[in-house]
Amino acid sequence: MTVGSLAVIGLGPGPADWLTPEASRLLGEATDLIGYEPYVARVADRPGLVRHASDNRVELDRARHALALAASGRHVAVVSGGDPGVFAMAAAVFEAIEAGAPDWRGLDIRVAPGVSAMQAAAARLGAPLGHDFCVMSLSDNLKPWAIIEKRLRAVADGDFVLALYNPASKARPTQLSDAFALLRDLKDSDTPVAFARAVGRPDERIVITTLGQADASLADMSTLVLIGSSETRLVSRPDGSAWLLTPRHYGVPR
Amino acid sequence: MTVGSLAVIGLGPGPADWLTPEASRLLGEATDLIGYEPYVARVADRPGLVRHASDNRVELDRARHALALAASGRHVAVVSGGDPGVFAMAAAVFEAIEAGAPDWRGLDIRVAPGVSAMQAAAARLGAPLGHDFCVMSLSDNLKPWAIIEKRLRAVADGDFVLALYNPASKARPTQLSDAFALLRDLKDSDTPVAFARAVGRPDERIVITTLGQADASLADMSTLVLIGSSETRLVSRPDGSAWLLTPRHYGVPR
Repeated sequence: MTVGSLAVIGLGPGPADWLTPEASRLLGEATDLIGYEPYVARVADRPGLVRHASDNRVELDRARHALALAASGRHVAVVSGGDPGVFAMAAAVFEAIEAGAPDWRGLDIRVAPGVSAMQAAAARLGAPLGHDFCVMSLSDNLKPWAIIEKRLRAVADGDFVLALYNPASKARPTQLSDAFALLRDLKDSDTPVAFARAVGRPDERIVITTLGQADASLADMSTLVLIGSSETRLVSRPDGSAWLLTPRHYGVPR
Repeated sequence: MTVGSLAVIGLGPGPADWLTPEASRLLGEATDLIGYEPYVARVADRPGLVRHASDNRVELDRARHALALAASGRHVAVVSGGDPGVFAMAAAVFEAIEAGAPDWRGLDIRVAPGVSAMQAAAARLGAPLGHDFCVMSLSDNLKPWAIIEKRLRAVADGDFVLALYNPASKARPTQLSDAFALLRDLKDSDTPVAFARAVGRPDERIVITTLGQADASLADMSTLVLIGSSETRLVSRPDGSAWLLTPRHYGVPR
């Protein structure tokens, strides 16, 4: 019997500079590459590597396909942008295993972490995640809007910094403005907000504003939105720009 | 005038396999290396590299020292384990800038993200962070216990997965057991809990249990504690072990 394997690999936010050596090595060992087309396109071609690109909405089909190939003896790399464990392919793979063929549970499966969009955004901005924070996807494809609202309220109650993934899409144009409206009732309007788009890629764009002024139309599916806690503040620079800082202390008079 | 620079670099959880190419390159360009001794010790020595190791409790002194050296024209690398933006040196550096010499605001400062402990732990465990989650430090050195309690309640109210950094130390032996006691009143006792110690290092140890059974004495300062949401569950393997999965869907009948 040929023994296959499946690696769920994080490519990081884009630049090769953020691709871990583990991810590079596993990509080099794969016979089959599976993922959403723009991520598959990031991996250099080489003889013997079979590429299976797919649409973004079919994570579970993609995971089943990968598992079936691994069960047949192939060495499969499933690729995600960022970290596969954060709103990416790792959950889809283990969901497929849970509901799938019993022998899939015995497969050699490895998850290779990567730098996630919130970390790249935070690095560019300074230290906005320097204290306790929450991480949410605003997509309601897979969860009811009621749980999103409940969680936004909990984040405000706990005075956490918030990192928002999937803030907008053509199918869901009002999610982010609805989230801002809810949070404006619960948090100070001066709370810093950052839109960090495509950090590390040629079309990177950073906008720092406040919750009161934040314009949801600045976000697309490549944007990570960060919303501060009551402690988050700007540290101004001589060129007129600023870093974002959430200090390690909480509740210390400034 | 000699122009210096400061890079705040994430070394990842330990193995070189998780050190990004950006971090490697910046370490190679540094004239001075500053950090908590075990992190400085991870960086290979080379001629011309001046090493400044220090104790763990002096982040702000260390940040000031690094900034003063950069202002004097040196190329300084401040190193953290994991990601410097997540409970590590980035916040201390920007706090020091905020309170420090005005010319520090004009320095060439770069933050290089890294794989954080929660991501390494999640990768080993399966996909526990596959849905919305919160990240907290249990250390009350820098924040009152009251805000920790408030945030733990908010995490339970929002039914988030929770990643806990700094769960224990000799100076604070009861923090984690106090946190478990608080959460047991708010969450199901069957909620999965994982202790992920030193993931990727030779002394790695993973324990999966439940909130009802969780023994706080399993955690030390090298342990990341993960506590599930109501959706987090085990996916069993033929060898008796299990993966942890928080699925992408919320509130779907199983």
